[in-house]
Amino acid sequence: MISWPTIYHVLEETVPLYVAMIVAYLSIQWWKLFTPEQCSGINKFVAKFSIPLLSFQILSTNNPYDMNLKLIFSDILQKSISLLGFAVISKTCCVEKFDWLITGFSLSTLPNTLIVGIPLLKGMYGDEAVKLLSQIVALQSLIWYTLLLFLFEFRAARGMDTTTSSETARSGTPAPMQERHEEGQAKGVSARCYSAFCFLLVVGRKLVINPNMYASLIGLIWALISFRWRIQLPLIVSNSIRILSDGGLGMAMFSLGLFTALQTKMIACGTKKMLLSLGIRFFLGPALMVISSYAIGMHGTLLKVAIIQLSSSAQAALPQGIVPFVFAKEYNVHADILSTAIIVGMMVAVPVALGYYFVIDHPRL
Amino acid sequence: MISWPTIYHVLEETVPLYVAMIVAYLSIQWWKLFTPEQCSGINKFVAKFSIPLLSFQILSTNNPYDMNLKLIFSDILQKSISLLGFAVISKTCCVEKFDWLITGFSLSTLPNTLIVGIPLLKGMYGDEAVKLLSQIVALQSLIWYTLLLFLFEFRAARGMDTTTSSETARSGTPAPMQERHEEGQAKGVSARCYSAFCFLLVVGRKLVINPNMYASLIGLIWALISFRWRIQLPLIVSNSIRILSDGGLGMAMFSLGLFTALQTKMIACGTKKMLLSLGIRFFLGPALMVISSYAIGMHGTLLKVAIIQLSSSAQAALPQGIVPFVFAKEYNVHADILSTAIIVGMMVAVPVALGYYFVIDHPRL
Repeated sequence: MISWPTIYHVLEETVPLYVAMIVAYLSIQWWKLFTPEQCSGINKFVAKFSIPLLSFQILSTNNPYDMNLKLIFSDILQKSISLLGFAVISKTCCVEKFDWLITGFSLSTLPNTLIVGIPLLKGMYGDEAVKLLSQIVALQSLIWYTLLLFLFEFRAARGMDTTTSSETARSGTPAPMQERHEEGQAKGVSARCYSAFCFLLVVGRKLVINPNMYASLIGLIWALISFRWRIQLPLIVSNSIRILSDGGLGMAMFSLGLFTALQTKMIACGTKKMLLSLGIRFFLGPALMVISSYAIGMHGTLLKVAIIQLSSSAQAALPQGIVPFVFAKEYNVHADILSTAIIVGMMVAVPVALGYYFVIDHPRL
Repeated sequence: MISWPTIYHVLEETVPLYVAMIVAYLSIQWWKLFTPEQCSGINKFVAKFSIPLLSFQILSTNNPYDMNLKLIFSDILQKSISLLGFAVISKTCCVEKFDWLITGFSLSTLPNTLIVGIPLLKGMYGDEAVKLLSQIVALQSLIWYTLLLFLFEFRAARGMDTTTSSETARSGTPAPMQERHEEGQAKGVSARCYSAFCFLLVVGRKLVINPNMYASLIGLIWALISFRWRIQLPLIVSNSIRILSDGGLGMAMFSLGLFTALQTKMIACGTKKMLLSLGIRFFLGPALMVISSYAIGMHGTLLKVAIIQLSSSAQAALPQGIVPFVFAKEYNVHADILSTAIIVGMMVAVPVALGYYFVIDHPRL
């Protein structure tokens, strides 16, 4: 039976995350401290420095030779089932087929593991959970976001751009997708060329400008070297990385608070879609993970970690987890739903995670 | 004799500071990552959150009952000599009397102890130095910056505003001082009232809006309670503070790099004044500290700490140490000199500190 001291211990790890977020929210809503442009400066710092360095630190300090193959396979299986499932469902629906495939996949399988997941599960299961989650973070950064990008580009290339561009105009930032489309049409580049060469070019270019991708890759490579030959980074180098990565977690949460405060509506997509997105996030996602885990033959503590990391994180925060939102906004696909899922999900993440934790740790199971 | 491993150890603590600063510099000069407005967002975050929380953390975790009275007295003596000396010198000069009193005092006695001083001296003398420096940080925040503010306001109140306001206009931000002056003149408030009530009101208002002042005061009060009755903050509270203060040091250095990159000139005040300001900073300041320390009867390690903390820090960075610059810009008094002292001083701080360290640790002494 889960005890009050355990719950308090989990709160010790998670409440600070909310404090950072609330302080940021108040600094906009009450104190009017930052202009939207200033906020975007802080968000850019987080996206370009804090998060990549945090990813590097977590990946480079965890032993990649101690990978849990079952966890990885069930992670892959869960994502495959989700993709397949939403492909079937969206096929039966008449409108926005591909849009719901992408959004459903994002909501059900891509939570904010790095920022919210790791502190939360550290409180619940200790340092062992961090080791497992770092493997999921590596996969997310290196494989799943790349796949998501492919899906978005595929949708654009097939001309399935059925939604209006009013949202893009409203967001204030020009969508590179739209621009590129116009460029392509102006130059008369044929559809065949576009769908092959240009397609790969654009995906490649997007991956290249993503510092988190680099950081994850370098972190993994360094971990492979470091744990193989037992080499450590010189203190002068690791201190140089630490000085900027140390505040990464707090800055990321602060940035999420700014994000929340700057949205015109908390629930941008309406109550119905909000409930649907939360249902996918907190019930369908974990359910798929349960099925995948049992199929792979994974029981015990590992299963708990796999389920809770999904339920806890509520598809929130920057840029792991907020990455699907950033893409969605850029490609103009259900950005309102993802924004709502981030904000509302963030609020209910800890209670939901504690609920799952309670159920899974119950002695009858 | 000082050894190479010792120097390397000092570099391990200080090079990361420069890395954070250089990354920020490059992000503006090379990558054009942030607009000036976005930079001001990051700087504001540092000034309003990172630095106050860092001050709180350092003050609240050091035992105030273990204060070194000799260090405090010699600190006060050094500041008094500096004030008196520059008062005499500026009296003999014909122009800008009061301006040079203030600038000389700032340059010779108000270095950047919190951000640059503490990591540097930790590398040289270990954790013992941190204890001593935290006392100097407390005095700086609570007494000396308040005194500096009084001097600036006194200068303004006596109508010694001889410099032109072109610099203020160029800086882009409206100087509250100027505004208030015009307001006062428009309302015909008498000079007598202004110099008494308004004077205190303005100083008080400036102190009230400075979060670092609050943070230092609360940190000191909490340390007095905590070390008296051996109470510790609950982990949930200290974690909440730590999540934002952890990155404070790196963010402060990053912000200093942004500051450097945004200046139109590295040496804004010309070479002659630059050399003068560095002379005051790195030779006169430490010399005054030597005199004060010997007068108080302080020898040994304590003296070393007192000298090096002054020489090391080069009047740099945010907002302890950059505070005199912020005031100088606002009151339009030699802001160019202080900006140069911050940038150039920051570059030569570590070599100079190592030089002093070498001389003081030499066996012949």
